[in-house]
Amino acid sequence: MRLKINREAFLKGLNIATKAIGLKSPLPVMTQLKVTLDEKGLDLIGSNNDLAIKTTIPFMIDNKAIITDYEFGGALLNSKIVTEIVRRVEGETISLEIVDGTIVEIGDGKSSFKLNAMRVEEYPELDLEVDGVVINLSSKVFSKMVEQTAFAASTKEQRPILTAVNLESIESKIVATATDSARLARKEIPIDKIVKLNANVPAKVLIEVSHLIEKETDLLISISDKKILISFDNTLVTSRLVGGEYPNTHNIIPKTFNFFLEANSHEIISAMERVSLLSIERENVVKLTMSEDGVEISSKSAQVGSASEQITTFSYTGDPFEVSFNSEYVMAAIRAAQCEDITIAFLGEMKPFVVRNNKDDSQVQLVTPVRTY
Amino acid sequence: MRLKINREAFLKGLNIATKAIGLKSPLPVMTQLKVTLDEKGLDLIGSNNDLAIKTTIPFMIDNKAIITDYEFGGALLNSKIVTEIVRRVEGETISLEIVDGTIVEIGDGKSSFKLNAMRVEEYPELDLEVDGVVINLSSKVFSKMVEQTAFAASTKEQRPILTAVNLESIESKIVATATDSARLARKEIPIDKIVKLNANVPAKVLIEVSHLIEKETDLLISISDKKILISFDNTLVTSRLVGGEYPNTHNIIPKTFNFFLEANSHEIISAMERVSLLSIERENVVKLTMSEDGVEISSKSAQVGSASEQITTFSYTGDPFEVSFNSEYVMAAIRAAQCEDITIAFLGEMKPFVVRNNKDDSQVQLVTPVRTY
Repeated sequence: MRLKINREAFLKGLNIATKAIGLKSPLPVMTQLKVTLDEKGLDLIGSNNDLAIKTTIPFMIDNKAIITDYEFGGALLNSKIVTEIVRRVEGETISLEIVDGTIVEIGDGKSSFKLNAMRVEEYPELDLEVDGVVINLSSKVFSKMVEQTAFAASTKEQRPILTAVNLESIESKIVATATDSARLARKEIPIDKIVKLNANVPAKVLIEVSHLIEKETDLLISISDKKILISFDNTLVTSRLVGGEYPNTHNIIPKTFNFFLEANSHEIISAMERVSLLSIERENVVKLTMSEDGVEISSKSAQVGSASEQITTFSYTGDPFEVSFNSEYVMAAIRAAQCEDITIAFLGEMKPFVVRNNKDDSQVQLVTPVRTY
Repeated sequence: MRLKINREAFLKGLNIATKAIGLKSPLPVMTQLKVTLDEKGLDLIGSNNDLAIKTTIPFMIDNKAIITDYEFGGALLNSKIVTEIVRRVEGETISLEIVDGTIVEIGDGKSSFKLNAMRVEEYPELDLEVDGVVINLSSKVFSKMVEQTAFAASTKEQRPILTAVNLESIESKIVATATDSARLARKEIPIDKIVKLNANVPAKVLIEVSHLIEKETDLLISISDKKILISFDNTLVTSRLVGGEYPNTHNIIPKTFNFFLEANSHEIISAMERVSLLSIERENVVKLTMSEDGVEISSKSAQVGSASEQITTFSYTGDPFEVSFNSEYVMAAIRAAQCEDITIAFLGEMKPFVVRNNKDDSQVQLVTPVRTY
């Protein structure tokens, strides 16, 4: 392998592919970046046990030569070192050459690095093929689905299934559901065909993909029994699915409610943030006290003191009512709802309640109250 | 105590005084902020075992009332909580009132907090008096002295004396010296009178003070046997001195040299940063190889590979010469020298060398080479 490459394009590719590489891996070869040049361009592949990312830097971008003076081939490189080198050298063009099987020379004329490399044959075979059900989504629809659901998945590994977002087909819709068992987020997105799908995709993979998307584009998503593959622009992300059956959440969303609070999203979030400062012993637990005359958010700590906030702009329907909850969950639900004025609908003191964007019925944000003593 | 106070001025004061408060302290009372209102204004005092900061918020700033509706008094408050509250409430004016001896109410009309407080009598007596030798310095001279010396002090507690900057009077100058035993930084500053001084001031206290200074001002510094006190604007910082005798460093700076390299500071720092990427086994050790024909910075790692950089703009006087050193130390010395073109003067392979700003002989930056094998 030998090539000259535009530094900026190379760095952009490195920043994408290295996202999949963990800091420590049981297999040392997995900390390496696989770099191969063939007739399609320069492929950069990074992976860990769960996730693989491949990005291709083409020979030309917008009629500008990106890769020149080349000879096909490949090598495995220390991903961290190569990224830092490309980030820090100053030349516009970088040369890369395998000088013998296991030494790669990188330079810009002024700086010169000889990196110990491994042979591409030592890299494990990855399954990067499109397989199973195929869906096309715009990046806008995909990213919104991720923003409105993935945060509610669990980050703890005790119940691996809850670290996933469940994607299920219902008629010509995909229903995305995430729950950590104390809250739930659901989003429905229409698709242009009827497919049969029920897959558990790691929430952090979906979040990673939404971060990798830089501009509006189209995504091809393929889901088989074992893996999801998402491809867009010159990049392809693949991940194993989470095994096991997703809990049945279809019937836990109440259909009728008794108490309704409508308030400004920004005001209620700011107030909760301040009141949560004093939720010391029970982290982030705050109390919401509502009547037609006033709405208060409060918290109490034996150790530090107490806090209360009056909400000034609100409309409340129902008998006087109070409920306690984890404010982080409710704030996250309000942010996910993405609306200026939020409606929170309650059924009863210890019943799950919903945080609702009245102009968007494609999503549900559900939170379980906590008991106070 | 009861007062209304401008939120911005209060927050600014809190940000200063809480800098002295450690996250954990053997004495719980030391995690508290002492807040007292008297005829001079609102005093905020934070301290830990080594350091105390007092800042006073006056009743008026630039003819604008800052504190109104007041009654003298004081309390001890949880520093972290009170700062977060004042940072996050939205009103322009905050009210603060001791409602009974140990509850302080804080609010802006909309948000309301009742904080458990302690009585001021429980706070330890601090010595905040001007005492001993007194020096006046402009903040500009002080900050430059700190920038050019304090970084070279040790951050390890094995030899506490090396965590200090030594301030010694020599005729009508103060000589500031810091060394961690592998490098040394020295700065002379003229003062307007002859004093007798030899004190070891914790480097981190000097750095903290230079960070607290927001605009050009004058500093009053008083140093007694036990403590340093630095006062400026409405703030006063005091710290114990480090006990023990500072090592004699007067004769370790070579007077004559055999090899001289002059180069662009930015170019040489960028090159060292890149080459250091491959200094893995021996952290940051790089080699400088010089002759009249060329200057190269290089490093080698059995594990990762090797790096080399050609310096393009340089002037070198002397026989061909090479030396290895910790690049972090040399880069810090070059930055401290604060000049566009840097001179590095060497005596011999294992002798300390100096990094020099030719237009400023008030400072010395000395680095010890490392042996390579």
